[in-house]
Amino acid sequence: MFLTSSGQARSGLLWALRHVRRASGAPARDPRFAALEDSDLQFFDSVLGAGGVVTDPHSLQPFNEDWLGKYKGSTRVALKPKTTEQAAAILRHCNSRRLAVGGNTGLVGGSVPVYDEVVVSTVCMNKVLSFDTVSGTLTAQAGCILEALDSHVAGHGYCMPLDLGAKGSCQIGGNVSTNAGGLRLLRYGSLHGSVLGLEAVLPGGEVLDLLTTLRKDNTGYDLKQLFIGAEGTLGLVTAVAIQCPPRPLAVNVAYLAVPTFAAAQQVLVAAKRQLGEVLSAFEFLDKESLAITLRHLPGTKDPLPGCQAPIFLVVETSGSSAAHDSDKLERFLEGVMEEGLVSDGVLAQDSAQVQQVWQLREGITTALRHRGAVYKYDVSLPISQMYALVEEMRTRLTTALPHLAGSSGGAGSGGGGGGDGSDDDGPPIRVAGYGHLGDVPGYSKEICEQIEPYVYEWTAQHRGSVSAEHGLGLMKAGCIGYSKPPAAVAVMRQIKAALDPHGIMNPYKVLPPEL
Amino acid sequence: MFLTSSGQARSGLLWALRHVRRASGAPARDPRFAALEDSDLQFFDSVLGAGGVVTDPHSLQPFNEDWLGKYKGSTRVALKPKTTEQAAAILRHCNSRRLAVGGNTGLVGGSVPVYDEVVVSTVCMNKVLSFDTVSGTLTAQAGCILEALDSHVAGHGYCMPLDLGAKGSCQIGGNVSTNAGGLRLLRYGSLHGSVLGLEAVLPGGEVLDLLTTLRKDNTGYDLKQLFIGAEGTLGLVTAVAIQCPPRPLAVNVAYLAVPTFAAAQQVLVAAKRQLGEVLSAFEFLDKESLAITLRHLPGTKDPLPGCQAPIFLVVETSGSSAAHDSDKLERFLEGVMEEGLVSDGVLAQDSAQVQQVWQLREGITTALRHRGAVYKYDVSLPISQMYALVEEMRTRLTTALPHLAGSSGGAGSGGGGGGDGSDDDGPPIRVAGYGHLGDVPGYSKEICEQIEPYVYEWTAQHRGSVSAEHGLGLMKAGCIGYSKPPAAVAVMRQIKAALDPHGIMNPYKVLPPEL
Repeated sequence: MFLTSSGQARSGLLWALRHVRRASGAPARDPRFAALEDSDLQFFDSVLGAGGVVTDPHSLQPFNEDWLGKYKGSTRVALKPKTTEQAAAILRHCNSRRLAVGGNTGLVGGSVPVYDEVVVSTVCMNKVLSFDTVSGTLTAQAGCILEALDSHVAGHGYCMPLDLGAKGSCQIGGNVSTNAGGLRLLRYGSLHGSVLGLEAVLPGGEVLDLLTTLRKDNTGYDLKQLFIGAEGTLGLVTAVAIQCPPRPLAVNVAYLAVPTFAAAQQVLVAAKRQLGEVLSAFEFLDKESLAITLRHLPGTKDPLPGCQAPIFLVVETSGSSAAHDSDKLERFLEGVMEEGLVSDGVLAQDSAQVQQVWQLREGITTALRHRGAVYKYDVSLPISQMYALVEEMRTRLTTALPHLAGSSGGAGSGGGGGGDGSDDDGPPIRVAGYGHLGDVPGYSKEICEQIEPYVYEWTAQHRGSVSAEHGLGLMKAGCIGYSKPPAAVAVMRQIKAALDPHGIMNPYKVLPPEL
Repeated sequence: MFLTSSGQARSGLLWALRHVRRASGAPARDPRFAALEDSDLQFFDSVLGAGGVVTDPHSLQPFNEDWLGKYKGSTRVALKPKTTEQAAAILRHCNSRRLAVGGNTGLVGGSVPVYDEVVVSTVCMNKVLSFDTVSGTLTAQAGCILEALDSHVAGHGYCMPLDLGAKGSCQIGGNVSTNAGGLRLLRYGSLHGSVLGLEAVLPGGEVLDLLTTLRKDNTGYDLKQLFIGAEGTLGLVTAVAIQCPPRPLAVNVAYLAVPTFAAAQQVLVAAKRQLGEVLSAFEFLDKESLAITLRHLPGTKDPLPGCQAPIFLVVETSGSSAAHDSDKLERFLEGVMEEGLVSDGVLAQDSAQVQQVWQLREGITTALRHRGAVYKYDVSLPISQMYALVEEMRTRLTTALPHLAGSSGGAGSGGGGGGDGSDDDGPPIRVAGYGHLGDVPGYSKEICEQIEPYVYEWTAQHRGSVSAEHGLGLMKAGCIGYSKPPAAVAVMRQIKAALDPHGIMNPYKVLPPEL
């Protein structure tokens, strides 16, 4: 989890769940789908040319594995259309032949074929279609890389309204299909607001041209919204029109120590009031996360050496005047320190120090993996409930598994004197307090059963979401009921049936199998 | 029309079209709908109690007329539920009885019964359900008045993310159902981004509880988005969760004269770069609009007396530091004046002057009405095309109707030496250059035929939208094809059929009748 000023926390993916699922059996291959035949390959060749049809097993391997290396599909063909028309011809053929289709962007196993789905990759649809330098509206094919687009608009004084660790490889179409949030969500809002239009190919091959670049367009239902976050299950997004904000001219970062999670919430309120329009990030990590990161991630440095606070904050401003922003930030810091909400803090003095602070925060995920198996839960919760889940999980694991989670320090406090990475590594299970729920040397059904479905039930009771931003994919398809009422799932099914009557698009994903 | 930095223009409604439609025949009453019977009224009484069921003709009158006084329905009953459960019971009954249901919020004739639809009003659902002072998330029943909500959150340092001239009477549920934009769109984005969740009652009486307050929630399809702007045709919105931004502590307004529309665009680029995060409004009016407003709206004053520029801009900043914002604004003004992009300008010195400038801009609509019949078109266009439509329409009307639009000054220039309101009132038809397409003493089929469908065709050719923010309602239901391709309209129909199989919700609206 990390904290954003919009009142939520998030963490990464839950790949632990899948281990359990695999043992208890993945969904069976849907027998309604046809198997690929030579005549299909001939058709694909005729549409795409030889370079656009990948069939040799070695070249197919990356399409059959997701980036975590956790999922394995068995597709026999990957298709690389260059144009919307080619994509439409492919889908029309697959639909009439009842060939299932998988995508190749996104996380949470939303991107990998489960069985032998035809993979359609937008990797060759990588052209910028237009950029309006007056309004900042960018129109691009779905396969454009996020970082390349950011560079493209940077030359005109704009930036992309989202930023992800994976920006060097992720495609804008995948960002939209998974409704990626990322670090700039606090400042620029979600893609539901910044995507102005999109083009999608429906399973039957119709091209849905919703590629308006207008910010205001109330003609009928806002269909593009359905494709944002649908993980390719309703159609293939082939192009996107997006509103780019002006590129900030100045960035400042503060790293703060706070005495309690309640104080962190008050600091957030003060930051929103006093930093207002320049506040661009507000994240937290606890001393567990800090200790593990400092110990396992080479090159990290503690910005406040020796500080024993339980919670740390990263506060970033981005604005159009360095002098104004520093001035605001200094006043804000004076205020929260006077009120005792912040016990210690440091202001990054140059871009190297800014990077150092961010490396710490962004490195937590990697650091946890170095330590062993990780049980991560991408859940959103109202701020007031957020840290309570971490604390309750510590108590729960200590009680249920004292031989793993208990120890001198107890799981609740994280064991040992972590904080500078020089001490011992604590008990086998540690609950890292940016919401990552524990990391142990190997996956265990025993541990999983202590965590699930408890974490989902707890999240639902507190009106949280079981998927903050990585979507449902394959792993959580069965979990949607924890966040959405049956009436909503029923409507989703109706929409899926209306747009994809044969269910060929990214099957087994998002919606739970019907009983 | 007015200019926003997102690259669009908008104007008001087109109520002219309806005059033509009425002559050529409104859609016939759908014979599948039942007529109200005494037993229905008894049922409604049993659910709502006597005070919740309005049947006497005098009290029904306001429900049968929209605020423009242009539409007249003939409903026999208006229902005022207080709770979601009551609303659900009403809709369930209407659905099983095939009684059509109309709403009572929204513009463009989306709000008025066309025939004898049962009116459901959310006027008594006016409770704030919760406000989280840390995150700024507000949850409120649909009937809460926008201004009341703004006052509610103001006490905690927040503001509503939308502002409308009608804020003193419009309901938040209606704002969401019509996807209202308003003056703060530039700063806070559309409701698709700031609405976090909503609750809607489906026609069958199921309650769709999507009332999460989480900013990030990727579980399944984002169904709430469908209800934003659906004008009540998919279900009744009963509650809304909305993200409130921090209330700005300082507001500055500049009123600028620019030599050409091209210069206005360059000023916009400069404003976005230099005012960045504090830029909160950027609007334009031309000298036609100014002259008519000064002449017909009592109490208005020309902020730049004697200035003969063709285009004027209103530029507003809202931020958290008055000193910083003034500093940014002054630098920006120096720059654009040095470059010759702005020929003259004035900075409002106090809140009275701020109001005076806004009164001018916001009063245009009212002023035009004082002059006679108004043909207004709520269209969005890419910025570069925006003023071209105004100029082309002037030429078109002058050529086709020289006796009405031509004169000494010609329709193109608006005639006379307008600008201070003291001269004569020009030729009968004037094309007001904030996009309002002409105002003449009475509605005329001859004039309409010169304007339509030309304005829609032109808008479609330039990838604009025929409905910027007032939705389609009844008037434009037949026009959706100008902005949305047939495949999109087909998908909308599928969604409508899935959610409202008997078509009882706000019939005859949004989607064109099927042939």
